[in-house]
Amino acid sequence: MNKFLFSKTLIVGMGLIGSSLARAIKKQNISKEIYGLDNNFEVIATCKKLKILNHCKKDIKEFSTQFDLIIICIPLSEYKKLFSLLSDFITEPTIITDVGSTKVSVIEDFKSQRKNKFINFVPGHPIAGLEKSGPKYGFAELFENRYCILTPFEKENSAFNLIKKFWESIGMEVESMKADYHDRILAMTSHIPQLIAYSIVYTANELEENLRDEIIKYSAAGFRDFTRLAGSDPIMWRDVYSMNKDSVIEMLGRFTEDLTTLQKAIRNNDTKFLEQTFSSTRKVRHTIEKLGQAGSFNPTEKDKI
Amino acid sequence: MNKFLFSKTLIVGMGLIGSSLARAIKKQNISKEIYGLDNNFEVIATCKKLKILNHCKKDIKEFSTQFDLIIICIPLSEYKKLFSLLSDFITEPTIITDVGSTKVSVIEDFKSQRKNKFINFVPGHPIAGLEKSGPKYGFAELFENRYCILTPFEKENSAFNLIKKFWESIGMEVESMKADYHDRILAMTSHIPQLIAYSIVYTANELEENLRDEIIKYSAAGFRDFTRLAGSDPIMWRDVYSMNKDSVIEMLGRFTEDLTTLQKAIRNNDTKFLEQTFSSTRKVRHTIEKLGQAGSFNPTEKDKI
Repeated sequence: MNKFLFSKTLIVGMGLIGSSLARAIKKQNISKEIYGLDNNFEVIATCKKLKILNHCKKDIKEFSTQFDLIIICIPLSEYKKLFSLLSDFITEPTIITDVGSTKVSVIEDFKSQRKNKFINFVPGHPIAGLEKSGPKYGFAELFENRYCILTPFEKENSAFNLIKKFWESIGMEVESMKADYHDRILAMTSHIPQLIAYSIVYTANELEENLRDEIIKYSAAGFRDFTRLAGSDPIMWRDVYSMNKDSVIEMLGRFTEDLTTLQKAIRNNDTKFLEQTFSSTRKVRHTIEKLGQAGSFNPTEKDKI
Repeated sequence: MNKFLFSKTLIVGMGLIGSSLARAIKKQNISKEIYGLDNNFEVIATCKKLKILNHCKKDIKEFSTQFDLIIICIPLSEYKKLFSLLSDFITEPTIITDVGSTKVSVIEDFKSQRKNKFINFVPGHPIAGLEKSGPKYGFAELFENRYCILTPFEKENSAFNLIKKFWESIGMEVESMKADYHDRILAMTSHIPQLIAYSIVYTANELEENLRDEIIKYSAAGFRDFTRLAGSDPIMWRDVYSMNKDSVIEMLGRFTEDLTTLQKAIRNNDTKFLEQTFSSTRKVRHTIEKLGQAGSFNPTEKDKI
């Protein structure tokens, strides 16, 4: 069975990302068998209905087999407990990767558990997602043409190239960097935008009732872009802010400084500064479009995903 | 020629909105003839190439005809001068409407000019747009299923129903409210989200060069949603903040308070508060989706508009 990269793959956490991975692995013939683990019976039932797994269980002890690849797709606050379970369960050489949005905390959680010589862990972060949660929203193409960042923490890791090949096989471009550098970049590209989106929707939600209803009604003016992000999984994001506190607070400080500068320019009618700033940001957008990382937005309701 | 709502329509400003209006008016057979006015020769040339107008000129004095409908689609800072030109030009009964993002300033600019008894002005704001500028990006369907807010400032205006019918004819749902209430709602649904988007992209742009490049590269994580807004027309937005200063500063104050509360919760590891807040915002998103005002986002690069 040479054509498969892995023989038995276990995906832990069958939400949007886990279920998309199952579909992508199946589509690309990457693993002979795909197993799932999830602590929610409803999720397990949906996965069975969708026929995206060979087997799906609630407790890892229910499996009578070992796996050559395990992919962790659960909230960051559950990693510690899972690493402990895996240390007890694994009795054969196993490569582990994950999809967590912070990497320093993940490595710390891994190191804090009992060492199991069969485990080879290469932390990963596929930069791909959607504001929807749950297996029914997943799709195989989610990862195509997106970046995946690996943050290996050992000088040499024999599994690195295989894991790189794995993420490439589902269409991703793989980059490697240190975990703390990853966490700083992601604070700016992901955690701060997300927090701001939550914050502005929260502000709107706190307004007087009649004003709030009007704001929802007329949201097509820009506000709706924020609500899309603010529709994301609350548990996942709660954990991100716990785990990447320092970088988030640093970048938030920079953002607040710049917002204050813009506010002052508005108060002082400094139209020249406003125009200059708004022109410079436009260039950033054009660069992202050229890099093919912009996605596409349809302002009509016609082609709903 | 009973089938047309208007005989001669003039669109002043042939950018994204003006050119989309021309297309929509043509598609729905609303006006027998459609004229355009723009102070940019390139825009005029593009409009001629696109064949979306019967005539397009740079100076209103070049027209030897009068119009029964004039739609103003220019930056807010140019209204005053245009109202003055129109007062001099118009010698027959003419209905004027506009698409400006603020309404108090527009009405003030109108009132500050010489009164011309032939002019009947019904200020409007179609809540529809895109981050692109220029006539080549316009399309007739931009307005379909979106709201248009009218802010009539006279107790009775004989043109109100006709203007309402006009916006409805291109697919919009029309609501009427006072100009200052409009400006407060739009501060929250549009002007603040836009300012925040500009601000965060500005922050990223100010970071050390290597970090900035990485942020652009990995923008698919949420940041790109902000860059989409921040790609909008700088002149248009510069003017919005000048014209709606008070409401913008009020709403910005509320936003900053709420962001500070979230920052404090992160610092203090108040995960319960974070989870509660993030869950409440999710409900807002679902309401917007139910109302059919969400648009649709495709995270892949496949179906570019």
